[in-house]
Amino acid sequence: MPRIAYFGPQGTFTEQAAIGFVHPGRDELVPYETVPQALAAVRRSEVDAACVPVENSVEGAVPATMDALAEGEPLVAVAETVLPVRFSVLVRPGTGVGAVRTVASHPHALAQVRYWLEENLPEASVVSTTSTAAAAVAVQRGEFDAAVSAPVAVNHYPLSEFATDVADVADAKTRFLYLRRPGTLPEPTGSDRTSMVVTTADRVGALSELLVELALRGISLTRIESRPTKGRLGEYRFYIDMLGHVAEPRVGDALAALHRHCRQVRFLGSYPQAEPTVSGEPVAASNEDFTAAADWVAAVRRGVGA
Amino acid sequence: MPRIAYFGPQGTFTEQAAIGFVHPGRDELVPYETVPQALAAVRRSEVDAACVPVENSVEGAVPATMDALAEGEPLVAVAETVLPVRFSVLVRPGTGVGAVRTVASHPHALAQVRYWLEENLPEASVVSTTSTAAAAVAVQRGEFDAAVSAPVAVNHYPLSEFATDVADVADAKTRFLYLRRPGTLPEPTGSDRTSMVVTTADRVGALSELLVELALRGISLTRIESRPTKGRLGEYRFYIDMLGHVAEPRVGDALAALHRHCRQVRFLGSYPQAEPTVSGEPVAASNEDFTAAADWVAAVRRGVGA
Repeated sequence: MPRIAYFGPQGTFTEQAAIGFVHPGRDELVPYETVPQALAAVRRSEVDAACVPVENSVEGAVPATMDALAEGEPLVAVAETVLPVRFSVLVRPGTGVGAVRTVASHPHALAQVRYWLEENLPEASVVSTTSTAAAAVAVQRGEFDAAVSAPVAVNHYPLSEFATDVADVADAKTRFLYLRRPGTLPEPTGSDRTSMVVTTADRVGALSELLVELALRGISLTRIESRPTKGRLGEYRFYIDMLGHVAEPRVGDALAALHRHCRQVRFLGSYPQAEPTVSGEPVAASNEDFTAAADWVAAVRRGVGA
Repeated sequence: MPRIAYFGPQGTFTEQAAIGFVHPGRDELVPYETVPQALAAVRRSEVDAACVPVENSVEGAVPATMDALAEGEPLVAVAETVLPVRFSVLVRPGTGVGAVRTVASHPHALAQVRYWLEENLPEASVVSTTSTAAAAVAVQRGEFDAAVSAPVAVNHYPLSEFATDVADVADAKTRFLYLRRPGTLPEPTGSDRTSMVVTTADRVGALSELLVELALRGISLTRIESRPTKGRLGEYRFYIDMLGHVAEPRVGDALAALHRHCRQVRFLGSYPQAEPTVSGEPVAASNEDFTAAADWVAAVRRGVGA
């Protein structure tokens, strides 16, 4: 039975994302306490894959995930999913509005429902817990009256939905990756994303050269983020997401160019985009353009073209 | 009396950073509940300046700060400071090792001292609070036995230092900015940083053009981060820190080039680096190079040079 690790505990948004990647009834979901622990379990072959958060539109990147992917045995993303950050407020069955005097959740979740609480439960005091799921457990035990939780939490605890679709920022989203040990890549779908982490030399212009290599091949970036590498002063790592699949000539060609330019390039996967983004038509960088160009150079070299 | 806002409450690392920017006994420090609230107080002239965190070497950027600087009336950083993230563990006076059964703090702080706790207080259970300072208050009230706090907290609460210099990652750091309404800039010191936020067109290569403009002038980036802009699909904002001062010709010239290329460029300040970084000698981009080049073009235009 395939086993899938996720950044737990049960009843969080990451479990909700993981459920979307698995075959119900066949795969077993295994919570791990931290992102590095979930990824280490894949590396040790204790599990077959892991689901971890990679960025949130309100909170930004998840550095724990990025750093754990940049170091250690390589892992490769084969899928992504994007979940809207919309909470459920859970109470013990039968709890009325007047009876909600305390509301518990992780501080990040509380920060994202602050206005909703002011409007709907202005009298309630707010208490912070280690996770959204821990808040649900505490409500079940009678320690607090309401928990701001991931919608999936209602499946794990005998609680009722006091409110659903709760969020101050209507379009807040979290993106999750589904990672395996390196192996067969997903087929290109025509709407793919490629992720990588690159270490450049400490030299003016190193990053601009790298981005020019992508631009010259008509490749759109969808995310870039610098992180200083630990230990080497002035050396930077860049986490880069771009549109396209490494199986496409323009992307493969660009990655080869980066391999020449950079101290280290680690491929983090080519996988279908969860929410296809429209990208301008690449100029002279289609598969046909690359094939025609390679054919022409080969012909020139054979002395039959010019 | 000058009033300085900071992201509170009292007794946190941001207060500690703010203390470093003020004149003791003369300036008044005013805590605000959120980063946007502290910045809004400067914009409304309720206070003269604000101290807010901008990035942490473990947790990454502080998106609340970056977003609040990119929108609303412009504010300009005039100084930065970098604090090592080293906690104090505070207890009620007379508490011995055996008596510490519960340890409280903000989840981010707890995550950064996890191994220390396992080694030094393996029996204690861990409780999460809304801030490191709230944990100290709760210990003072007798709700928990120990608080993982910023070192400055011991000045505010009648607690004792059970341990100091506590951190799993020895070199974890947080960088803070000291921001004012636009006005006279700090003088260049020869070791300065310039911060800006840039919005580019949704076009392949837009970012690479921008970085080439910097590279051609010998300017080193120290940080880059993309954030999608709210509302406009496919439009990105880039937060960029680079070495140099806008008063230097190469930096002023580069910013002017960006102003031509980009949808929007917002200057976030030129200020002395807290920890000077060594940067390679810029190639043909010294102040003298720029002066000589401008003189030559002027001479050509006057018909006295060629």
